[in-house]
Amino acid sequence: MMTMTLLNETHDPALRSWVMSANPENADFTIQNLPFAVFRRRDTNEAFRGGVAIGDQILDLAAAAASGALSGDAAAALQAAAGETLNALMALGQPAWSALRLALSRALRTGAVEESQLAGCLVPQAVAEFAVPARIGDYTDFYTSVYHATNIGRQFRPDNPLLPNFKWIPIGYHGRASSIGVSGQSFPRPVGQTLPPGASVPVFGPCKRLDYELEMGVFVGHGNALGEPIAITEAEASVFGMCLLNDWSARDIQAWEYQPLGPFLSKNFASTISPWIVTLEALAPYRVAFTRPERDPLPLPYLDAPANRAQGAMDVQLEVLLQTQAMREQGQAAARLTRTSYRHAYWTVAQMVAHHTVNGCNLQPGDLLGTGTLSGPTLDQAGALIELTVGGKQPLTLPNGQTRTYLEDGDAVVLRGWCEKPGAARIGFGECIGTVLPARA
Amino acid sequence: MMTMTLLNETHDPALRSWVMSANPENADFTIQNLPFAVFRRRDTNEAFRGGVAIGDQILDLAAAAASGALSGDAAAALQAAAGETLNALMALGQPAWSALRLALSRALRTGAVEESQLAGCLVPQAVAEFAVPARIGDYTDFYTSVYHATNIGRQFRPDNPLLPNFKWIPIGYHGRASSIGVSGQSFPRPVGQTLPPGASVPVFGPCKRLDYELEMGVFVGHGNALGEPIAITEAEASVFGMCLLNDWSARDIQAWEYQPLGPFLSKNFASTISPWIVTLEALAPYRVAFTRPERDPLPLPYLDAPANRAQGAMDVQLEVLLQTQAMREQGQAAARLTRTSYRHAYWTVAQMVAHHTVNGCNLQPGDLLGTGTLSGPTLDQAGALIELTVGGKQPLTLPNGQTRTYLEDGDAVVLRGWCEKPGAARIGFGECIGTVLPARA
Repeated sequence: MMTMTLLNETHDPALRSWVMSANPENADFTIQNLPFAVFRRRDTNEAFRGGVAIGDQILDLAAAAASGALSGDAAAALQAAAGETLNALMALGQPAWSALRLALSRALRTGAVEESQLAGCLVPQAVAEFAVPARIGDYTDFYTSVYHATNIGRQFRPDNPLLPNFKWIPIGYHGRASSIGVSGQSFPRPVGQTLPPGASVPVFGPCKRLDYELEMGVFVGHGNALGEPIAITEAEASVFGMCLLNDWSARDIQAWEYQPLGPFLSKNFASTISPWIVTLEALAPYRVAFTRPERDPLPLPYLDAPANRAQGAMDVQLEVLLQTQAMREQGQAAARLTRTSYRHAYWTVAQMVAHHTVNGCNLQPGDLLGTGTLSGPTLDQAGALIELTVGGKQPLTLPNGQTRTYLEDGDAVVLRGWCEKPGAARIGFGECIGTVLPARA
Repeated sequence: MMTMTLLNETHDPALRSWVMSANPENADFTIQNLPFAVFRRRDTNEAFRGGVAIGDQILDLAAAAASGALSGDAAAALQAAAGETLNALMALGQPAWSALRLALSRALRTGAVEESQLAGCLVPQAVAEFAVPARIGDYTDFYTSVYHATNIGRQFRPDNPLLPNFKWIPIGYHGRASSIGVSGQSFPRPVGQTLPPGASVPVFGPCKRLDYELEMGVFVGHGNALGEPIAITEAEASVFGMCLLNDWSARDIQAWEYQPLGPFLSKNFASTISPWIVTLEALAPYRVAFTRPERDPLPLPYLDAPANRAQGAMDVQLEVLLQTQAMREQGQAAARLTRTSYRHAYWTVAQMVAHHTVNGCNLQPGDLLGTGTLSGPTLDQAGALIELTVGGKQPLTLPNGQTRTYLEDGDAVVLRGWCEKPGAARIGFGECIGTVLPARA
């Protein structure tokens, strides 16, 4: 049953770690966070294995399992996290994840007896490379921001920007799993068919309207059998955690191809996720009420539950930054384009899961759900260039004087996410970075 | 390079097998066919493993590998087919598949010295159960029949049935891999949101317009790396083979959900494939010219190649049959609803692969592509009830007097496919059967 999320000792903001870099108040990877990734030391042939971020270090879960520092259910969960993907850990379910979190929290605290065993299991993040943390069987992308849907709709249908199904259905569609990469991914600018304005015959060539989309990703945990829906009251217990997601989009290819079956080549050339998956339990202090404008319809019963109303949303701060090749060459930091929060989403994670499975569709451990572009209520909170530049009509000017309507070759896009508020420890998602390469010759 | 498909000794219609049931002229599984599946004996705990159909038997590829009957490249390919999925065999590529086919053809011929070793490796199909033959990383469904697109479009847009992109783009979208099952699959009628005619508020309940879609499936072989397109001249060499595919569709759910991102819950509750994958090499005698009406545009260069024009299409005979629960209870055979051929598709397999990858999207061994509903030029050749019954307005009458607009609980839908012509051996796909169960209470 979906209970109101309870805070427990792992959330205590007074906790400190013997890994000193976890303790500054502005750290992403505090002891209250403990997100999961899959990693190895860069430039080695080591096997990829699970890791937990703590400060600027990674607790190597394969080494920790071998150390024997944990026992009981937590040790079994630790062993499941020692392989090349986190699917086995995800399949264990919420009680196992919670047991592992509690044991790691205790073992990493100042004064823990496990320090002597686990200190040798740390790998600096600075020497690590990451992999996509799960074998993603299916990737589904939703469309949960009413602001994004309205901003986009206004460009196509000025008088009727929001389609009539939006406030009833958490709209989603299937995306491409094979081209999902981890932060650091680069990809050639896609080529394809586009229909120039006013033309009746398409042209073929590199995309001219390449965009990013600021999203969060939701990793499914134990899932459900075909034909057996997950009730909204059970939905969050099936979710392992959240990451950052950049759903790169070729707007000109999309406009020509998307009728009647939806986006295809405009989206499936690359999608980039952050290495770290923050568990739902870590996010508990940052749950907030799910709000809808008063005149909006109530969700249908299968999409409605008291706990979802009370704390279905999450106040995750999000920002998008851009670093052009010129900025990189001149040593200039990435410039912020957007700042918003995930709390503005119209549909919650629990609603996404309940809707996805209501027809009997089965979710499996490691499946990824995207939230869709997370634009906030004002245009400067928009999560994509097509919104920020009003369809390319209002270029952005960067601090170094360069301008952008859409992305140019060499541009790197950085997503960041974090939670902070008085009385709770900060937790962060780290970064999700991707770089556009020139189109293939 | 895509060469004109060459016939070789494995296609010789005079070949006969020492497996006598392979030799009748009306057999699906002649020695010229040799399709692949994954199977085990029913009601056992045996491991699933690869098998090749020959007559009414299955050559157990794990047993054949252990027998040592084959040597060289063929033996290596045989070993790759002995596991629980065919992904490893698919990854080996066309030369390996061809070597294995030639070796199996020789070993199964009348008089082959391997008969004594392989006779003990046969399992009757009557005692087998099948599995989805590959771990399907991604499933993409296309929309390659201009007749289907026009029939459907006419119901929504009578004056302009075909969208302007259809004759330029092999339209496709991503489908759900997790809910793909093998022939014999049954599934509860999906429930979901629909918008009744004239209503502005949706209702929730069991689908009232449940349909099938007659399709073929294309299993990808070795695939491509992210960012590296497969040229149309190389496309067929990346394809392992073809199967039958029923893309079950909830039309009323689809109508309400599909704007703007395409079908989702209306399709992802179940998709059913035949157990047997017929290789492209086996289909070589049945290749035919790719034809377009004269006034249609020529394909853009990345979708055009001489070999594709000359023999890009395949003359696979297809039929759909329906057996209601009453027919089953009264011992009546399934009634045929449709007969058509895959040759009528507007876009070819090579064009599907070239288009899918032109933007850099990577295909992986075991990925499945659907052709979309394969309706022929006349309405009685339509591959879905929504076409045959003109949107439910013209019910079909079955031989026992029952009528159907859409599928009812207990209905079993049977797809069949085969190739035959004078001067070539018949090859068949067997059957793809699926049954509709009542909606969950």
